[in-house]
Amino acid sequence: MNISILFGGSSYEHEISIVSAVTMKKVFKKTGLSFIFVSSEREFFLIDPSKMTSKHFSSGAYKKDKKLTLKQGGFFIDGILGSKQVAFDVALNLIHGRDGEDGKIASLMSFYHIPFISPRLEASVLSYNKLYTKFLAQSLGVKTVAYEHLSKDDERKITMSYPVIVKPVRLGSSIGVSIVKNDTELDYALDVAFEFDTDVIIEPFITGVKEYNQAGCHTKDWELSIVEEPHKEEFLDFEKKYMDFSRDSKVHSADISDSLRITIQENFKKIYHPLFLGSVIRCDFFVIENEVYLNEINPIPGSMANYLFEDFESMIHRLSSNLPEEKTITVNYQYIHSIQSAKGKAS
Amino acid sequence: MNISILFGGSSYEHEISIVSAVTMKKVFKKTGLSFIFVSSEREFFLIDPSKMTSKHFSSGAYKKDKKLTLKQGGFFIDGILGSKQVAFDVALNLIHGRDGEDGKIASLMSFYHIPFISPRLEASVLSYNKLYTKFLAQSLGVKTVAYEHLSKDDERKITMSYPVIVKPVRLGSSIGVSIVKNDTELDYALDVAFEFDTDVIIEPFITGVKEYNQAGCHTKDWELSIVEEPHKEEFLDFEKKYMDFSRDSKVHSADISDSLRITIQENFKKIYHPLFLGSVIRCDFFVIENEVYLNEINPIPGSMANYLFEDFESMIHRLSSNLPEEKTITVNYQYIHSIQSAKGKAS
Repeated sequence: MNISILFGGSSYEHEISIVSAVTMKKVFKKTGLSFIFVSSEREFFLIDPSKMTSKHFSSGAYKKDKKLTLKQGGFFIDGILGSKQVAFDVALNLIHGRDGEDGKIASLMSFYHIPFISPRLEASVLSYNKLYTKFLAQSLGVKTVAYEHLSKDDERKITMSYPVIVKPVRLGSSIGVSIVKNDTELDYALDVAFEFDTDVIIEPFITGVKEYNQAGCHTKDWELSIVEEPHKEEFLDFEKKYMDFSRDSKVHSADISDSLRITIQENFKKIYHPLFLGSVIRCDFFVIENEVYLNEINPIPGSMANYLFEDFESMIHRLSSNLPEEKTITVNYQYIHSIQSAKGKAS
Repeated sequence: MNISILFGGSSYEHEISIVSAVTMKKVFKKTGLSFIFVSSEREFFLIDPSKMTSKHFSSGAYKKDKKLTLKQGGFFIDGILGSKQVAFDVALNLIHGRDGEDGKIASLMSFYHIPFISPRLEASVLSYNKLYTKFLAQSLGVKTVAYEHLSKDDERKITMSYPVIVKPVRLGSSIGVSIVKNDTELDYALDVAFEFDTDVIIEPFITGVKEYNQAGCHTKDWELSIVEEPHKEEFLDFEKKYMDFSRDSKVHSADISDSLRITIQENFKKIYHPLFLGSVIRCDFFVIENEVYLNEINPIPGSMANYLFEDFESMIHRLSSNLPEEKTITVNYQYIHSIQSAKGKAS
């Protein structure tokens, strides 16, 4: 099995995508790996596995690597003597944030008929935007925390009582997120958030809430990770974030009751199936007074949440063999032929 | 001003997209036009305007035209002496149905930094799927007709009373749509609909309902079309459909009160702004007991609904100069540099 890791992208999370991708070298032990870097200008480069260090990108050395062109069926190295396809069985989308999580990479892979592991187009758009995630969860009967929505041009007024948490709707990794205790802080937090996004959602900031993460996918059957209780600081600093995206060692399963675990898993399955087929996602849940609430969907979790699975690599192989297929549409020009017959001429 | 029309696509509406594109030759009189055909295999071909007849495609003659490759900044003709860019100011997405309306073309144009007229990625996904359109309308305070949602594997039971109308969630142009009067017909209608899609919505089939279409866009200001009262038959046959997609002559404005017109326009604006900036869409409304309901959004209406506008061509020029711009994200590797400093080494 040969997997090509797509990483980088025109995203605020470009750099942590590199960290995630470097980590994959340690995670995949029995898989042929190739690495395709999407620069911030959205050019494709084929990176030799031996060059997969963060410095190769921060120094700009990647610019000397082979440039690729996307064409029907795959990525191609253009040369004087024609073009040569990069060989792999499946692409693994590891671009965090814009491009990777918003549906662009899913669109490109679908359009060019490249088998890929990632949320598909619709799943990407609904999970990348926290407001749309609320719509989705509501329609599936999954509880979410109360929220208000503000657009850039709206009056800056909320009805919720403080403290609240302000989140740009489209970003991950805590970018542009603020906890706010009064009107003045709200105004400042909105200035910050609207630097990054046109829309925010505002939720009550609940302290002491229990948080649990569940990752998983569906291959021939459900493959669910352990439930993790993440160690939270009020804000993630850059070293903590680095730890999260470079993690490759196992963590302990949360100490929770079987019934809570089952409820968390049931909520995960409702969200995942069938919209997220073809992907490995992580859902972050809150538990408040014994009720499970979806906090957010991580459509492309840091380092693919590999550390939550018993045998991540084998699972990815099984997923590669169980990807959803796009419906084949046959175009036979029957309709145009009918029109031409009806009109009695060929125009 | 030079516009490139994108048409075709891997879509059930591939052929009517060709009809729409051929019509554009008559509609644009003072604009330089080029035509880029997306074959059902999703290869790009540059079509000479003189060859823009439906027969050129139904006969397969297009296969001898110049093949194009999408790269950063545009479409390129690859030749022995290097590649040459196809020159245009803006691409106009005229691919109906899959690829064009589902967000793939929007993704490709955004990813490759090509200015384009079309609903953007999120707008495409929310309007292509009739279930998501319901979510969107509800969140914007726009009324829609009551509905039930069934997935392929769900029990085939509805609570609504007959007659009902069954619609695949993802298709346009009445494909797979049935009107159903009892359980037996429902079963057959679902068999038909699930041939095309994994999900359907079911709505009450209301007879004698008034239907009104409003098209428009936002350039420097609102540019709204006349309100049209379409002439409906119970089903559109292929000649009627052809008429709709090849239409280039004006129609009459519906005979309605000013207050109803204003209500329809207000609903249109709620749907359009800001999600659909950069596109010309048509919203189809029902009026039931003086209340306005959104029936559906046509994100890429047949022949761009040109016949509803006083001066369609000039409007498209203004729209081309007022396209929404993607946020620029600067990647400076500051985060990786910090990690490297913190670790005291360059890995």
